[in-house]
Amino acid sequence: MLLTPKDELDTRIGHLKPLMEKAGLDGAFFHYKIDYYYFSGTTQDGFLFVPTGGAPVLFIRRELGRAKRESRLEHVVPLKSSEEIRPYVRGMKRIGLQLDVMPYNMVLAFKEHLGEAELVNASSLAKTVRKKKSPFEIRVMEKAAAIAREVYGKIPELLKEGMREIELGGILEAIAKPLGHEGLLRMRSLNYEPYTWHVLSGRTGSIVSQADSPMGGLGLSPAFPVGASMKKMRRGEPILIDFGVNYHGYHMDLTRMYAIGRMPEEFARAYETCREIHYRVLDRATSGVTASELFRYSNELANEAGFGAYYLGYGHHKVSFLGHGIGVELSELPFLAPRHDYPMEEGMTLAIEPKMVFPRKGATGIENTVVFEKGGYRVLSDVDESIIVV
Amino acid sequence: MLLTPKDELDTRIGHLKPLMEKAGLDGAFFHYKIDYYYFSGTTQDGFLFVPTGGAPVLFIRRELGRAKRESRLEHVVPLKSSEEIRPYVRGMKRIGLQLDVMPYNMVLAFKEHLGEAELVNASSLAKTVRKKKSPFEIRVMEKAAAIAREVYGKIPELLKEGMREIELGGILEAIAKPLGHEGLLRMRSLNYEPYTWHVLSGRTGSIVSQADSPMGGLGLSPAFPVGASMKKMRRGEPILIDFGVNYHGYHMDLTRMYAIGRMPEEFARAYETCREIHYRVLDRATSGVTASELFRYSNELANEAGFGAYYLGYGHHKVSFLGHGIGVELSELPFLAPRHDYPMEEGMTLAIEPKMVFPRKGATGIENTVVFEKGGYRVLSDVDESIIVV
Repeated sequence: MLLTPKDELDTRIGHLKPLMEKAGLDGAFFHYKIDYYYFSGTTQDGFLFVPTGGAPVLFIRRELGRAKRESRLEHVVPLKSSEEIRPYVRGMKRIGLQLDVMPYNMVLAFKEHLGEAELVNASSLAKTVRKKKSPFEIRVMEKAAAIAREVYGKIPELLKEGMREIELGGILEAIAKPLGHEGLLRMRSLNYEPYTWHVLSGRTGSIVSQADSPMGGLGLSPAFPVGASMKKMRRGEPILIDFGVNYHGYHMDLTRMYAIGRMPEEFARAYETCREIHYRVLDRATSGVTASELFRYSNELANEAGFGAYYLGYGHHKVSFLGHGIGVELSELPFLAPRHDYPMEEGMTLAIEPKMVFPRKGATGIENTVVFEKGGYRVLSDVDESIIVV
Repeated sequence: MLLTPKDELDTRIGHLKPLMEKAGLDGAFFHYKIDYYYFSGTTQDGFLFVPTGGAPVLFIRRELGRAKRESRLEHVVPLKSSEEIRPYVRGMKRIGLQLDVMPYNMVLAFKEHLGEAELVNASSLAKTVRKKKSPFEIRVMEKAAAIAREVYGKIPELLKEGMREIELGGILEAIAKPLGHEGLLRMRSLNYEPYTWHVLSGRTGSIVSQADSPMGGLGLSPAFPVGASMKKMRRGEPILIDFGVNYHGYHMDLTRMYAIGRMPEEFARAYETCREIHYRVLDRATSGVTASELFRYSNELANEAGFGAYYLGYGHHKVSFLGHGIGVELSELPFLAPRHDYPMEEGMTLAIEPKMVFPRKGATGIENTVVFEKGGYRVLSDVDESIIVV
């Protein structure tokens, strides 16, 4: 098992503190485990406190021994009751909490121990730090990509006429897990549960669901109405496989297209347009234009190619993002979307996913996870981009 | 796909309203999808409003057509902005929100549209209604049990010396999904993510983690340090498989014991004690004693058998529950635990799980999901309870 090195944690907290200072915070608590994993290296039950002017303290409720083995932070201490934090926050006037994810009642209960301090949302600071990845993080994501490469490499031999979408989705997961895939993907949301088995064929590719995505799939029931379904995959249908991997908490997101027998001409052309958009947008991204401009540019390219009506969804189901940052959450900063007026920078990772949806017929498109590097970008999800026809 | 019938929804809301009235509520909103699935039959993006004196209204943000097909409620309406709820709450003085799960900032934003109304946590009301299951719900849970039966039936032919825990966990999931298993289990928690692939062998069965459970397992990484790991399963180790199923949102929870070659004597004896505790507690439950008494009684039985030090965990890792209700959440009311001073009643479903953990050696135990019926109980997770040695 890979542990997050001490200097890596120090660097991350070193990036956080100036943001805390700028926000006028005396300290910040991280109760949401995705963020305290990022700053401490463990997800054992507890929370992290970062005083602006001191060393971080990880409070652990349950398995202290394990937390100490997993976290390279110096101060990992047991916690019996939240009131034990009182001495740590004495005299503090502005304290950060993760107000975007912490339940309302949990904030009220915790606030009891913070005296008169004003509460500020600290999640935006964590998200800002996480926006750029370190070489260590890129190496972990490369391992996630290697898992994806092995999984996608098996699809041609597995895909058969009459196979159910969910059957293939399940087998792909069974291949991924012993390679290190955690089985769960993560996104900060009350209701949206990301998942790995996104296998859509023909008509199910045009079905929209709860998620803010151009396509959702049918899923297995109204209780989880997204992703692979009981539908059998047929000859001549576009089959879209968007199989996300999570390795040591770091995600990898990619989409490839498959068909049995033949890929319908319209979907093949649309796919090539998506692929062209993907690379032209990335090439332009390296020239320093903003994310919102890149999003607009991609729409122009789709319109020019005659696919504007289907690009990123159809009708009122069209979504307004072309790409999302990716790391310890499946979707995080940066976003290729309107109002995101910053350029792509070295160290940012991005899942870029130009996709097209044709009502009642299906979906097509490509997705890659890329990292921006000095003077360019590199595709991490380095898997054959041809349409695979079996 | 199974849809929740209209009369079923009517009955559920019919049970909710007197509780709302008793709590002095004029209306309640359900934003957490597990609860609005229960009251509306759909999980499409939106939320449910139940006025104490009127018909429920399901507000849908994204896929209205799909929500209307999935929900048998009469009023399923589109929502562009939350401020559209204002006419519905005009003049209301006390309004329920799900303050235990809704993020703090989400509550503050939504509160803007509720005028001067006092906010009350409505989740406890939903949980109370969900505590007893209808015949429809039991039928859905029986289907979940049938999936579990098929999955567990395959284990003897799959389990091999040298196989990694996670490899078996992945294969079991791949079998379960095309039978209808959603792949995700659910529990209301900021940080705890339930999962299906709980396969623990020998020493990993004694590893404790973030979850409030006697055993957690090693998992694949510090990012998700629970469940099946890369450890290879060996001859003569106790192998505990606690594979949860989710069918149409309803869970099924059960644990069985396996070994390759032979089961160590100590674990076999401990298992038989767990099994005896399981049935003696259930038999006593039908006589109307309270949940907390049943919990205490089970501890007495474990002590008498000489396993007190290992029962429900060892040392300070001992947990204080023997069973949990189960339905649209993996863990819900009722609980067999201290301070739960109510009896088991007809219609309640319970996952009862007497387990023992031996430091550094492993875990053993049994778990079944049962339903209380007139004058007795019935085991839903009807799978061979012998220790399976392959």
